[in-house]
Parts: sequence; structure tokens; C-alpha cells
Amino acid sequence: MFQPGQMMDRPLLISGIIEHAAAQFGSVDVVSRETHGPLFRYTYADCAVRSRQLANALKALGLGPGSAVGSIAWNNHRHLEAYFAVSGSGMVMHTCNPRLQAQQLVYIINHADDEVVLFDTTFAPLVKGIAAHCPKVKAWVCLSDGDNTVAVDGVANVLCYEDLIAAHDDRFDWPDFDERTGAALCYTSGTTGHPKGVLYSHRAIVLNALSGCLPGVMSLSPKDTVLPVVPMFHINAWCIPYGAPIAGARLVLPGPRLDGASLHELMEAERVTVTAGVPIIWLGLLQHVEQHGLRFSTMRRTTVGGSAMPAALIAKFAEKYGVEVRHGWGMTETTAVATIGCLTPENELLPPAEQHAIVARQGKSLFGVEIKVVDENGATLPRDGTSQGELLVRGQWIASGYYKGEASPLVDGWFPTGDIATIEPGGIMQIRDRTKDVIKTGGEWISSIDLENAAMGHPDVAMAAVIGVKHPKWEERPLLFIVRRPGQSLGKDEILAFLSERVAKWWVPDDVVFVESLPVGGTGKVQKAELRKQYDGVFS
Amino acid sequence: MFQPGQMMDRPLLISGIIEHAAAQFGSVDVVSRETHGPLFRYTYADCAVRSRQLANALKALGLGPGSAVGSIAWNNHRHLEAYFAVSGSGMVMHTCNPRLQAQQLVYIINHADDEVVLFDTTFAPLVKGIAAHCPKVKAWVCLSDGDNTVAVDGVANVLCYEDLIAAHDDRFDWPDFDERTGAALCYTSGTTGHPKGVLYSHRAIVLNALSGCLPGVMSLSPKDTVLPVVPMFHINAWCIPYGAPIAGARLVLPGPRLDGASLHELMEAERVTVTAGVPIIWLGLLQHVEQHGLRFSTMRRTTVGGSAMPAALIAKFAEKYGVEVRHGWGMTETTAVATIGCLTPENELLPPAEQHAIVARQGKSLFGVEIKVVDENGATLPRDGTSQGELLVRGQWIASGYYKGEASPLVDGWFPTGDIATIEPGGIMQIRDRTKDVIKTGGEWISSIDLENAAMGHPDVAMAAVIGVKHPKWEERPLLFIVRRPGQSLGKDEILAFLSERVAKWWVPDDVVFVESLPVGGTGKVQKAELRKQYDGVFS
Repeated sequence: MFQPGQMMDRPLLISGIIEHAAAQFGSVDVVSRETHGPLFRYTYADCAVRSRQLANALKALGLGPGSAVGSIAWNNHRHLEAYFAVSGSGMVMHTCNPRLQAQQLVYIINHADDEVVLFDTTFAPLVKGIAAHCPKVKAWVCLSDGDNTVAVDGVANVLCYEDLIAAHDDRFDWPDFDERTGAALCYTSGTTGHPKGVLYSHRAIVLNALSGCLPGVMSLSPKDTVLPVVPMFHINAWCIPYGAPIAGARLVLPGPRLDGASLHELMEAERVTVTAGVPIIWLGLLQHVEQHGLRFSTMRRTTVGGSAMPAALIAKFAEKYGVEVRHGWGMTETTAVATIGCLTPENELLPPAEQHAIVARQGKSLFGVEIKVVDENGATLPRDGTSQGELLVRGQWIASGYYKGEASPLVDGWFPTGDIATIEPGGIMQIRDRTKDVIKTGGEWISSIDLENAAMGHPDVAMAAVIGVKHPKWEERPLLFIVRRPGQSLGKDEILAFLSERVAKWWVPDDVVFVESLPVGGTGKVQKAELRKQYDGVFS
Repeated sequence: MFQPGQMMDRPLLISGIIEHAAAQFGSVDVVSRETHGPLFRYTYADCAVRSRQLANALKALGLGPGSAVGSIAWNNHRHLEAYFAVSGSGMVMHTCNPRLQAQQLVYIINHADDEVVLFDTTFAPLVKGIAAHCPKVKAWVCLSDGDNTVAVDGVANVLCYEDLIAAHDDRFDWPDFDERTGAALCYTSGTTGHPKGVLYSHRAIVLNALSGCLPGVMSLSPKDTVLPVVPMFHINAWCIPYGAPIAGARLVLPGPRLDGASLHELMEAERVTVTAGVPIIWLGLLQHVEQHGLRFSTMRRTTVGGSAMPAALIAKFAEKYGVEVRHGWGMTETTAVATIGCLTPENELLPPAEQHAIVARQGKSLFGVEIKVVDENGATLPRDGTSQGELLVRGQWIASGYYKGEASPLVDGWFPTGDIATIEPGGIMQIRDRTKDVIKTGGEWISSIDLENAAMGHPDVAMAAVIGVKHPKWEERPLLFIVRRPGQSLGKDEILAFLSERVAKWWVPDDVVFVESLPVGGTGKVQKAELRKQYDGVFS
């Protein structure tokens, strides 16, 4: 018979994170860009005090365990307080992506039964447009002080955050409850159908946040200052708002200013050592830094995910700026990071280009997560680095279902990701494509991502996207979209010749479209569905 | 109503650690010193294979979930395999401290109901002496191959480890069970009464091991090679045998060779970056390194605990050898590390002596653990850095009771440690003494540890110990024991004058005893009980 261990039985709760930081790292800075411009600066001890005040305020508004609180907000200190106050009270923190269409926002706020919605002033016009359609929301709370709170035309129940919390006691007895209780809710911005909600448990968030601090993952410690560019409205900002106070790292929140110049200035001023974000943000940052001949004085590591980071960008960070890129993979359904790469001392002896090629892959699954790739019949494919199949994932912080969803998405206990991947014998996973983006041609598959990365290797290319377009003979053929770098005049023959030297002949796109810009969605990914709609039939 | 989260529900199990390492870090080295001398080298993938073989072998011996397996063994690869095979099977891994007296070993093996005991050849004489008194043990397994397995006179049921596992399949379906199941058992070597067993759960070990890998704790990653000097028979070698495979760090196990020369040679040969052990081991290591004018080429961090690390040793590591000391605190009842220090960037701007003084304290509680100090009535004392009281601890990996123990040791849900400590406003804890070692004089307390550390600051002192001895007027007065460095002739007046400049006048010991050696127990601590017995009444 199994013998029960004799250890204290205490739940892993999010309230424990902020109280840990207040007790152990009470004087450590949290720096936050206000939506109206200035930098705000306080400590984890202050954050705990105000989180408790907010918890009391929400209780006074009639909310209780299980109530949902929405947010439409940037990465800032009030949003951070809400993370702790809402989840710590046993309520559900529902972060809304402000880049969703208004009708989708209305849908998710109603679907989540949000009783209060917190919003930054930037999104007042959005609130104006949706408030009338969200009858369950008792109060729209403007994340600002009295001077900067905006009235929202036609919306009566707008409260000022600072006024709301000021009246309340800074003592609050965080409730004890099952660590499997829902803590945060985030909807996937699906391209078809309604968004689907993922309800993260306290346990999942705490375990992911702890794992994210590991030196082989994001590496957060009392020696670090971390700036999450990845938004707090998108899969918990990869749990950095929880991980930094666990580790005692200084936390810098950039508010609405995500352009290269603002980010670089903030990184330098606050001596940021670690950052995290999607590739498109780093593209803007590096362009700014290069144009102005700047450096990174303190930044040592950046974690990149959300979409594939081109090897050219990785090389620039490593060779020109001495910044180590850690390439990760995760999705809304995986709480935050599920796999990540970390060069070993042996890797670091390889020629730079080989190192960058390793970094460009999505790395190994973290402890607590398992991955496998399967063929179309669900059979597990070998870990040989070449067998491509759908990536399946299971583990501590992987979704088992969707909020109020009826059908389980799981296949034999595994979550099917919709990504096409390979896994090497050593465990390194590489995303080859989305199942819906992979180009099926003449019975073979072409990875749109590999083609895009190859095109991004050309110095005149700022952005690239590849879609499969129906073809009378080959089923589908690749079509390449290029945004040239400013001032460059790259032509079709030149880029196709460049690609011919780098990919198999039958991978070379059938045509190239030069565009001024590409449609990028709320999570920093090119919206290929839109391109497919627009270019459907061009090869017919 | 609290809403249940929608995440997969998977237990945190020790079997998951070795399978994670095999899948993600399969080619990473484990290097192990054989008891008979040579270095053995294999990988985590090999370790997983052999752990599964051992799991099958134990099953074939008739053991099942809840069965206990004892070990009397060094830090080596077979002991590591047992860690995974035994706990992974739902059995209890009972590590025995070979430095216990024979009668205590007999007591704990019988008390734990060990059905199999694994032993290194070093301990064959020990086994010979105790086997007849341990009737429940079906087999004594010598951790060796056929050539090096020793016969044990008068003990019939001795098996050879390699023969035992060779016959078995390397596939084993690790069972799924509650993560609160007992995984490992370690007895405290109490100075009075019978040893008491602490039964660690899978959950406690996994959470501690994960936390131990954090960059602010031991910092283990795929870039590191870790050498735990702290023994696997003593509170799980601070969970490094679990943490290294979680993190993908190379693991170097030093076997029986713990002298300075052997350790230094191994550290250099295997490019060790991180070590962990008790201060007395580092004393021997540094003496060797200094005597021979050696360096540490790759070692960057060492974690120290078990007893207080003198500031003089910390200074030498930091200033002379560029090794960062992380000073931690834990005890058998806390699974492994419960608090640890980590210098912040602000600390690193301080003069070296001030930095070392910070490092000499025991640091902050890890996330998941809470600490407080209380007075004799149990009232919580302020975190002011000066209020001394008993240290109480609670959290994820803290014992709630003793194995087969009747009375709970807890006080209002907190574990009373028997240590006297202070906590600073910033959360840094400092052990001032053991409750039983603190010297009560004239209504005030003198910290024996502070006095010892002050004495250790004298360049001629190799070791120092202070005890309180009954005194007719003052209740107790301090008596100082000194082991001089080789070749030094330090006298009583000189050391007392040295101390007078460093501690309050009434702290200066009433007498000094120069000795050739001090009695050091199984966990590297000076056995003050013995000194007290011997010197009782010298001031009467």
C-alpha cells in the first residue's frame, strides 16, 4: 500500500506570490509606464498593499469567489495589482485582448460573465462601443487617478480606480482554497467561430511561473530586472508578472509604449537584464537600435515566442549586441512557455551560424510538460528531426478543455496543438508550420515558416509571409509576400534566385507579391487567413 | 462559488524527473566515482534504463508500493538509480547515515521496515555487525559489479547489484499515484532519544528540487555541471540528485573521496560550475587549494549549509577564488533548502566585508516557505534584525510529523526548528544559535555561533567551538575550544584579546581550551553535547 508522506499540505496560490514578494523582496522596485506618459515607481510591498485594497474594493462591489473581472489594459502596475487581487480572492481574472473586434469583445465579456471590467484610458472608445451590450457588467473601472480618468459617453457606471481602492483597508485575509481553482481566463483569438476561453488554475500558473524563472528558461533572480513586452492581456504575459515576484526580480512594465525607441530608452534607463516578447516587437526594436547606432548596456537575455524568430534576427542579437535569444513555444492553451531552447556549453563551441540554427528551433519541453508528434492516424512519429506531424502536448499547465465548452479537445489525454513539428533525438522541437498553413503540393508538404525564414535572410527584406494557393495541377503552390526594407528595391527574380540557393527547387514560390505592409493580428502574427481570402484563385 | 480550473491534472512524481531527463537531456553526462576508485561515466538516458531495470528487480524480489528500501551508500550512480527506481515505484527510499552508531542503524532499519538494504563495499563491516539484528531485511544488495562485490561474513542474503538488475527488462510502467505519497525517508540524528524519521512526499521533493534550480538558489541549467558533496544519505543531498536532471545540468558524484585533493581534482577534471556542501568540507578543500597554490578554473558558485559558514571562508572564496557563496539553511524536517541568500546588484556595490557579512546570514525563505521568530510565549517577534527567538517554519516541503510518530511536533501549524534566529525587515534570516547551544548568562543570551565565527576570523584558527558551562554566579559562561592551524602557536591571551576587539566585553569567554581536534558528527556539525558532558562543572 502506498504510504502517505508526512509533509504540510498547503495549496499553491497566487496570493502567496505577492505576499512572498512583500515579505522577502518588499523594497524591490516595480516600474510602470502610466498610460498618460510618466513613469510610476513603487515596490512589491506597495503592490501588495494596493492589491489587498483592491481585493476589499471588489468584495464591497458585491463580487465573491468565482466572480469574473475583465481587463482591457496595458502592462502596468494597476493591471498587476488586479492579477493578485482578483485571483487571490478566488475570483477569475479575465484578460481581454483589446485588438479583438468589438463584437468579439462583447462576446467574451458576456461569455465570461464579467461583473467588473478594468480598462486603460486608451480603450475608452472601445468601452463606449461595447458597454451597452454587456449588461452583466456592474462597473467599468478606469485604471487611472482622478485627474486622468476619462468619462465615457453614454456609460454611467464608470469608476476611477484610485478612488475605488483609496477607501479600503490594506489588510485582507486571502482565502485558502483548492489550488486547482480557476485563477485566470484568456480567450483564444480563433480565426473561425467564437473565441474559446482557457481557465488557468492557480496550480498551473504557479508551477509555470516557477519554471519560467529557471536559469535554462527565462532566468529570473534578485540580480535581474525583467521587462515583459509580451502583453498581460495575452496568456498571462508568459507568467512573468507572477515569476518576477517569486524570484525577487525587478519588474519593468512598459505600458502602451511598445515602439523601438520607447522600449530601448526604458531598457537602458532601468538597466533591464531580461526581456520577453514576440519577434515583431524585436524587429522594431532592432531597427531603431541599428538606425541610431545604439547598444544594449545591460540586456543579456531575451525570450522570444508567439511566432518563429528568424535566424537573421537571432544572429544580430547574438553577434552584434551580445544578447542571448531563448526561443520558446507556447499557446493560449499552455498557460505560458511549454518548450524553450537553451544553448549548452558544447553548443557554444559551434560556429555562430550553427548556434543560431539551434536557437531558431523551439527547444525542449520544460519539466512537467511532455510533447510528441503524431501522424494523421494519431501514431507517434519517431524523434528523428525529420518526421513531421501534429504536435501534441500534455502536462501540468496544459488545458483540458474550454470554458463552458462541451466537447473535450483532448486526444487520449493529449492536447492537439494544430502545429506541425519535428522532434530531434535530443528532444529539441521545431515548429514547421500550422496545420492550416502548411502547403500541400504534389503529395508533399512545404513549410511556410521555413520559406519565410529563408526569405527573411535576405538583407533587403523587412517582413515575409508565405501562403499556399490552390493550383490546378499541384493541389497547392506557395505564394510569397515581401515587405521591402525602407529604400530597397529588391525585385522578384532576385528574391527567387536567393531562395533557390537555400531551399529545395520545388519549394521555390510560384510568385512574389511586394506589399507595403502585412496584416498582423492581436498576437503579433501575420493573419494568413486574410491573405488567403484575398489571393484565392490566383494560380487557377 | 469557486470555479474549478480547466487544466490537466497530473501528479508531480519523481519518476517524471528521470523520464524528463532521459527524453530531453538523454545524452547529458552523469559522472560517478566508484567506491573502488575509478570514475564511471554514463548519461541520463542510461540512468533511466538502469532505474527501470532496478524497479523491475525490486518488484521481482516481492516489494511493492509502500515497501521501504534502505541505503547505506555514498554519492554514486547506483545510489542515484535507487532514488528513481524506489520512489518511482511508489516505494520509500530510506537513506541511512553510515556515521550513525550501529545500534541506531539497527533501530532505523527496523523502524522503517526496510525489506532490502543497498550498501557500498565501504560499509560491509557495518552490515556484518547489524544484519543479524535486522530480520525484516530480505536482501542486502552490494552496490557493485561481480568483481568488486564483497562477501559479508555470516550474512547469507547478500546480492550483487549488477547481477540483480542485469536480468531485468529496461521497460517499466511507472505507476501513477497521489503526489502526496511518501517517496523518501530520512532520520534525524538526534543527540537524545531514538532517531526520528521524516517521510518526504513526491510533491515536496519535486517542488523543492525545482526551486533549488532557480538562479537565486543553486542555479542549475543545461550550462552547468553540479557536484553535490552534501551526501545522498543526508536530507536527499539537498535534492540536487532530483534538481540536476530537472534542469539538464551535468551531475558529478564524488563517491567516497571527500578530501580536498580528490574534490579539487574532480572539480577541475569535470569542469564543475556549481557545488554544495557543509562548511567543514570547504575548509578542507580550501586548505588543500591554498597549500598547493591551486585555482578553481570553472567553479562559480557554491551553496553552503548545515552549519554556519564563517565570514572568513566566504571572503576567501569570493576574493581569492572568485567563487560566489550562497549560504542556505534547512534541516532534515525541511526536505532540503528552506532559506538562501543571494546578493543583489545593490549589495554588490558594497565594500567586500559588508557583502561577506550579508552572505554569512542564512538568507530569505524560498517561495513556498514562510518563516517567523517567536518569543518563549509563542508571540511573533518583529522583523527588526535584532529580536532573537525560536525560528518557526511552514510551507510546501516542511514536515508535519515524524514517521510512526504519535504526537505532532507542530505549533499552530508551524514547525519549531530549535534554532534561535533573527529576521531583518528585508526578510534576511540569521541563525544565532541552537536553542540548546545558546549561552544564558546574567539574564542575557550569548550566541555561541557568533563567538565561533569571531574566533574563526583569527588567521591561526582552524576550528572553533563555544559551549556554555554552568557558572555559580552568572548561570552559564562561555568556554572556547580552539584547533590551531598546523604549525601555529596561538595562545590564550592572544585569542581573547582578539575577541575583545570584536564582541561585547561580557561575551568574551572565561577560558580557552586548545585541542587537536573537535568531535564532528555525521552531518558535519561539532557535537557540543559531548563537549558539554566532558567539561561540565569546570567553572563551578
